[in-house]
Amino acid sequence: MIIALDMMGGDYAPLEAVKGTLSYLSEAPDPAHLLLIGDEVQLQLLLQQYPLKPGCFTIIHASQVIDMHEHPTKALKEKQHSSIAIGFHLLATGKADAIISAGNTGAMLVGALYSIKPIEGVNRPTIGAYMPRENGKLGLLLDAGINADCKPENLNQFAILGSLFVQHVWNIENPGVALLNIGEEEGKGNLLAQATYPLLKENPLINFIGNIEGRDVFLDKADVIVCEGFTGNVMLKMAESVYDIIKRRNIHDAYFDRFEFEQYGGVPVLGVNKPVIIGHGISNEPSFKNMILMAQKIVEINLIEKIKKSFKPQ
Amino acid sequence: MIIALDMMGGDYAPLEAVKGTLSYLSEAPDPAHLLLIGDEVQLQLLLQQYPLKPGCFTIIHASQVIDMHEHPTKALKEKQHSSIAIGFHLLATGKADAIISAGNTGAMLVGALYSIKPIEGVNRPTIGAYMPRENGKLGLLLDAGINADCKPENLNQFAILGSLFVQHVWNIENPGVALLNIGEEEGKGNLLAQATYPLLKENPLINFIGNIEGRDVFLDKADVIVCEGFTGNVMLKMAESVYDIIKRRNIHDAYFDRFEFEQYGGVPVLGVNKPVIIGHGISNEPSFKNMILMAQKIVEINLIEKIKKSFKPQ
Repeated sequence: MIIALDMMGGDYAPLEAVKGTLSYLSEAPDPAHLLLIGDEVQLQLLLQQYPLKPGCFTIIHASQVIDMHEHPTKALKEKQHSSIAIGFHLLATGKADAIISAGNTGAMLVGALYSIKPIEGVNRPTIGAYMPRENGKLGLLLDAGINADCKPENLNQFAILGSLFVQHVWNIENPGVALLNIGEEEGKGNLLAQATYPLLKENPLINFIGNIEGRDVFLDKADVIVCEGFTGNVMLKMAESVYDIIKRRNIHDAYFDRFEFEQYGGVPVLGVNKPVIIGHGISNEPSFKNMILMAQKIVEINLIEKIKKSFKPQ
Repeated sequence: MIIALDMMGGDYAPLEAVKGTLSYLSEAPDPAHLLLIGDEVQLQLLLQQYPLKPGCFTIIHASQVIDMHEHPTKALKEKQHSSIAIGFHLLATGKADAIISAGNTGAMLVGALYSIKPIEGVNRPTIGAYMPRENGKLGLLLDAGINADCKPENLNQFAILGSLFVQHVWNIENPGVALLNIGEEEGKGNLLAQATYPLLKENPLINFIGNIEGRDVFLDKADVIVCEGFTGNVMLKMAESVYDIIKRRNIHDAYFDRFEFEQYGGVPVLGVNKPVIIGHGISNEPSFKNMILMAQKIVEINLIEKIKKSFKPQ
């Protein structure tokens, strides 16, 4: 198994990327071969300080970097020698089995959607957000912001994608899928929620548990929560801001510590033909390690094939 | 000035309603005359324990109560002798200047929309939610859930309604109005947000400060935040659940204490022809006192006339 890692993406790259790689290679029982894509001189210097097990990695030189604020499509087209562009080239040509970056999110999405492309039958690939629940588990909320306007069928597909991820990557059997809504009964909500409910109810591929409200997200109710990306993004950012306030007010609490989103590594783009994992801009050593572990698991369990099978026309 | 108060509405009525009335009458320098609508026997009994200043109130007997879970339209039609129905009758016939209830929210909305009716020019009356901000102030988020699907012009009207309320009731001069969005720049967001932005930008009646994101709601950015009622309701309930978790985890913090929404009393229905204030089901003594104070202020400053003037065709 070969995993391509953008060493130049994120606020603390390449240092934290190198450290994360080191902890992954030291800890993983059966590590994947890593393609470390980035500025060779910088990387070699860092590797003197953080020596990696020989034979477990290959450095692939990238002479360019896509900055966090560059226009995604333009940057990806014009910077063919950037770490992200090289990474997608390796992935698209079968020289890597997965790609990871904590760099420009837009460029990663453009790469996923246009270079790797959606799985046949998936209308809108999605990314989710992790919601820490009081029961100690996480919930997967999707879409978290890349699909601001959705049709009912999109939400129905998010439900399948989220369900497969939670089942196979988090090992939660028969995960409960809920529709985010502003009332508990069927028939409640805006037009989108009203039209989505019957689709979810009749979807044989998911375990639909009904509507949940904004107050239920952190509770022991749903493993997967679907909504359009506008509300999902507002919720994600509101949750992040609650954590910021908790920190500013010097509150120490084990539950709220789980709102530090870097600890989870990154989120996969669900519904594209290869594993693509996007990290937070402030990814640190454990984030990088966890992203590599997640990529490895997604490849090992063959999540992409499972998704393809679910979306194959009957 | 005459204010009609539903004494039977809310989980702790009529006791807390009586106690709230007592504290209002003891504290307000120039109290309004109160019409206390409810079961006369129960009220007289409570008044022996909590004697109110004579001459400041009139008990109006209501032989029926609309329960929290009754169908609003049906209940209001069939229970003509309920406290809410009697209250709206008094308001509609000019025998009261404002109505307050912590009872069935749906029945209060039906009464406001069909008995009192929207102000000419207002397409969709709205109710807001209070968001405690770190700077010590509150923000007004609207719509908080009664308008799940909105057009751009609805959000533009919410901006005017919220702005007038914050300016005249909270005494904030030139309040900043923001559009809730999932990006900061103009052109970002879903179709609704994209179409709403130019309307807000060109609206001479408000001080539009641009887009804000889910992470900005609790910050020193906007006094008024507009969005459709789906996202608004999800945010409100998520904020309430954060407070519940804070309490369950035994965290004591002055900022998060301000998330106890009962302390603010109730929210006005903005955009109808008379002052209508809806309280939380768990309203307690200070909630009732604060709702009466708010009703008094709304009547005193003549908020309804100010709204009518803003919506008068040029």
